[in-house]
Amino acid sequence: MSKTIDFYYEFSSPYGYLAAMRVEDVAAKHEVDINWKPFLLGAVFKQVGTKPLLDYPVKGEYSLKDMYRTARLHNIPFEMPTSFPFMAVNACRLVIWAAGEDNSKRAELSKAIYKACYEGGQVISDKAVLLDVAEEYGYMRDEADAGISSDQIKAKLKQEVEEGVKAQVFGSPFFVVDGEAFWGFDRLDHLDKWLETGGW
Amino acid sequence: MSKTIDFYYEFSSPYGYLAAMRVEDVAAKHEVDINWKPFLLGAVFKQVGTKPLLDYPVKGEYSLKDMYRTARLHNIPFEMPTSFPFMAVNACRLVIWAAGEDNSKRAELSKAIYKACYEGGQVISDKAVLLDVAEEYGYMRDEADAGISSDQIKAKLKQEVEEGVKAQVFGSPFFVVDGEAFWGFDRLDHLDKWLETGGW
Repeated sequence: MSKTIDFYYEFSSPYGYLAAMRVEDVAAKHEVDINWKPFLLGAVFKQVGTKPLLDYPVKGEYSLKDMYRTARLHNIPFEMPTSFPFMAVNACRLVIWAAGEDNSKRAELSKAIYKACYEGGQVISDKAVLLDVAEEYGYMRDEADAGISSDQIKAKLKQEVEEGVKAQVFGSPFFVVDGEAFWGFDRLDHLDKWLETGGW
Repeated sequence: MSKTIDFYYEFSSPYGYLAAMRVEDVAAKHEVDINWKPFLLGAVFKQVGTKPLLDYPVKGEYSLKDMYRTARLHNIPFEMPTSFPFMAVNACRLVIWAAGEDNSKRAELSKAIYKACYEGGQVISDKAVLLDVAEEYGYMRDEADAGISSDQIKAKLKQEVEEGVKAQVFGSPFFVVDGEAFWGFDRLDHLDKWLETGGW
């Protein structure tokens, strides 16, 4: 049986965006699949006793610099959105509505949403912006609108986020493979090594 | 003028220990000097709104695993001390008393203290243990004892920690070169690249 990487990501997370741009390279190298799992960090901040990174004095300012530096080091286009952090619940719902359990569709749409935000400077907490992205990818605007507002999709996202909380996800990006957790864009090297060696 | 790395480290910080075992490799590669700056994180936790890493639920448990995994990946012997976190004020004072401004002595003694703690399982918040280490390195036990209790050394440490706070140090390990800050053992690669390229 092929291994899979459970990849949890919050849209209001620059390091999550950076990971979304690179995790497929790691997966392809080791011929493993990725389960794309949009996640809401708000669900765990209270539980873990943390808060959005940029809300910390001193550490927040440093982190902003580190985000840009990391993006430049890895040649990933990056610009902080003007409004940050933001509510990403509709972005998550859109991915789930449009892609269902199809991971390649989840990947495609998630990357498109991330790029709209961190490359395109668009406000993806704005539903109209999300619907623009959905349209670009061939979805009907009004169907998408109805879809992300439906009780079924709301419940499905809630369920997926709860599963993430149970899996002890507490940050973004967050990877789980073989039951081993890896947190942060800067742990892609651990993930890579883990897949290469089967653990060390 | 040769560049220098300001290296801040808290003795009650496993990632600080790991960095102390590797930062000299990075410095030697680029022929730069290191200013060894023992630091007390307690001074900034309140200001930044953070707390010792292992005090966070979920994130703390993950971090403990990550410390061991990181140590194994980099072939650094590592064992968590039985009592953690601990007061490192006397360890800092010992380094400052014994080494003064001599960075090679600071390096030697700091690494010895770190190893006693994270390799040797010794309780370095215990002054007797620190004095054992001092003795091993050729210092007179009673002179060291008097030194770390002296007002002069207490004031010197206070001053150095205040300088670190002014330099916006908020974690351990913490590196500053060219006014650019790098936080964490996992940023030694950024530091390496920065020294290689002069910034990017």
